[in-house]
Amino acid sequence: MPTTVPALAAAAADAPFERVQIERRDLRPDDVQIDIRWAGICHSDIHMKRGEWGETLYPLTPGHEILGTVVAVGDQVTRHQVGDVVGVGCLVDSCGECAPCTDGEEQYCTKGSVQTYGQEDYHGEVTKGGYSDQVVVKDAFVVRIPDGYAESDHAAVTPLLCAGITTYHPLKEHGVGPGSRVGVIGLGGLGHVAVKIAAAMGAEVTVLSRTDAKKADGLAFGATDYRATEDGTAFSELAGSFDVIINTVGSGIPLDSYMRLLDRGGVLANVGAPTDSLQVSAFSLLANRRRLAGNMIGGLPETQEMLDFCAEHGVAATVEVIGADQVDDYYDKVVAGDVRYRAVIDTTTLAG
Amino acid sequence: MPTTVPALAAAAADAPFERVQIERRDLRPDDVQIDIRWAGICHSDIHMKRGEWGETLYPLTPGHEILGTVVAVGDQVTRHQVGDVVGVGCLVDSCGECAPCTDGEEQYCTKGSVQTYGQEDYHGEVTKGGYSDQVVVKDAFVVRIPDGYAESDHAAVTPLLCAGITTYHPLKEHGVGPGSRVGVIGLGGLGHVAVKIAAAMGAEVTVLSRTDAKKADGLAFGATDYRATEDGTAFSELAGSFDVIINTVGSGIPLDSYMRLLDRGGVLANVGAPTDSLQVSAFSLLANRRRLAGNMIGGLPETQEMLDFCAEHGVAATVEVIGADQVDDYYDKVVAGDVRYRAVIDTTTLAG
Repeated sequence: MPTTVPALAAAAADAPFERVQIERRDLRPDDVQIDIRWAGICHSDIHMKRGEWGETLYPLTPGHEILGTVVAVGDQVTRHQVGDVVGVGCLVDSCGECAPCTDGEEQYCTKGSVQTYGQEDYHGEVTKGGYSDQVVVKDAFVVRIPDGYAESDHAAVTPLLCAGITTYHPLKEHGVGPGSRVGVIGLGGLGHVAVKIAAAMGAEVTVLSRTDAKKADGLAFGATDYRATEDGTAFSELAGSFDVIINTVGSGIPLDSYMRLLDRGGVLANVGAPTDSLQVSAFSLLANRRRLAGNMIGGLPETQEMLDFCAEHGVAATVEVIGADQVDDYYDKVVAGDVRYRAVIDTTTLAG
Repeated sequence: MPTTVPALAAAAADAPFERVQIERRDLRPDDVQIDIRWAGICHSDIHMKRGEWGETLYPLTPGHEILGTVVAVGDQVTRHQVGDVVGVGCLVDSCGECAPCTDGEEQYCTKGSVQTYGQEDYHGEVTKGGYSDQVVVKDAFVVRIPDGYAESDHAAVTPLLCAGITTYHPLKEHGVGPGSRVGVIGLGGLGHVAVKIAAAMGAEVTVLSRTDAKKADGLAFGATDYRATEDGTAFSELAGSFDVIINTVGSGIPLDSYMRLLDRGGVLANVGAPTDSLQVSAFSLLANRRRLAGNMIGGLPETQEMLDFCAEHGVAATVEVIGADQVDDYYDKVVAGDVRYRAVIDTTTLAG
């Protein structure tokens, strides 16, 4: 019989979250049952809940930054055992057979990977995410939280499951290492993790934020420089000075001005997912043979690699722990850029 | 005393070309004097002549696809000697000391490289291009036309000095080789050379042209497939099927539709230089971690490498040879896409 567990759900785009009971399936042989301890709030949760990315399936239980403890495993599970501290990110299934899957890039599965919440899975059930007490996930989509983290770190580790891999992937793909010159546009949930990871990789990191408001934080996170962009002088002074720029903001920024900050062969990687089109002049690309790139999270092997890297370098997010009652308010705060720097739900408050 | 030679010049954006006499400087110790035999017409000549890329310095003598024979050399010239068949492309000078220059990417010279025509050079003189009988160019900016080409090939080799290097560079930068799946958007001056070079590299090349009008030519140039895009079916049928797409068209095309033709990690390289911004959805980049890139010609070492590669593989442009009186008409024909596939001026017609 399926397990019934407390969760949050939104019945419509403009409805507040309500405490509900949701069902978690009986364990299949390759399933892991996880008692969720922390669930991060990602900006995509907000886009999905508010129906800003097309049709959303309601009632919606978001959450794809999940950390908890294994409480049961199916007969064929080999990777995890009861008592393990584990994580679940944005994906819970993929075909396992196509080229992306066999390359460990399940997010690009040609059959279509299954997102952790809000999508009909291969069995015809709509997935429900981490804003809940428990989750049942296929073994292969569960990662190990490294022992290097103390239990008191776990809330702050949780956002790495999405924000961590989303920024680690492009930093690695574009060759960031010691001495690389990295710019990070925006110091929010994704941006602050990008700064910490790039610094841990040995890069010289510059925060490109609209105002000076977060300067002390940016430098504390490991940036060597912090530039407020609102007065425009950064765009002339830093021209041609970055190898890689991670854009966590998306639309509504003068993309060509940022492109001109790239040195020869440099790349601006978009990790945000704005609904507006990006606009860039062909000359911004031609000059210095620059590139505009994007990526969608990372695959499971790389997610584990990222967690191991972050544990080794003492990297975790900077978070505000909140209760189930605060989620609606925090959605507004995230959109307003008022969270320092990621909100994580304490799931012990779900039962209410 | 400077040499006076016949040339074409335009006095204004809307003025026709006129036969004029222009001066070529006395040889400096590192200069090569070239008797020009052929001068290609590049679409950029038209943008410049018509003032579409900002302020143009008139009178303008365009031409940055130049092939001719060395008739004199300065005292310190070591690379070339009288009688050599040589070429000049888009650049005639650069600082020689910055990182791009020492890396052989003079086009990205941080001081600003000097274009072959229409730009004030480091000595304060406005450069004049290949639509003339002779040109005097610094030794290091003159390349060797490989002996593998017969004299009867020379008119067709001339466009390689711009169209060849402009397309060779991104094909090489993005790793095209045997088995690579390459799409070429547009079968014009740049596009037809891109098809020939990519095919010579061993790639499977698909032409993506608006109509079927040039299908026979595309296949004859070495494409293995040719798809007319006007009915839209190519966009669904070829989704995710290219490693590299070379966009020779620029603006006015549904860029997101083309981006979706890229497989995982694929790159769409813009080599045209439209004045409108490119618009691309962030999701087009995120999905399959695609990249939008650009490049501006290539450096001198790579230009020589490209010529050697093309000679070895029997690659040259497909050209229409025209006289000096036809240049104005051919500007209109190039814009209308009516040239098969590059126009080259027979400079013996300049004296008139």
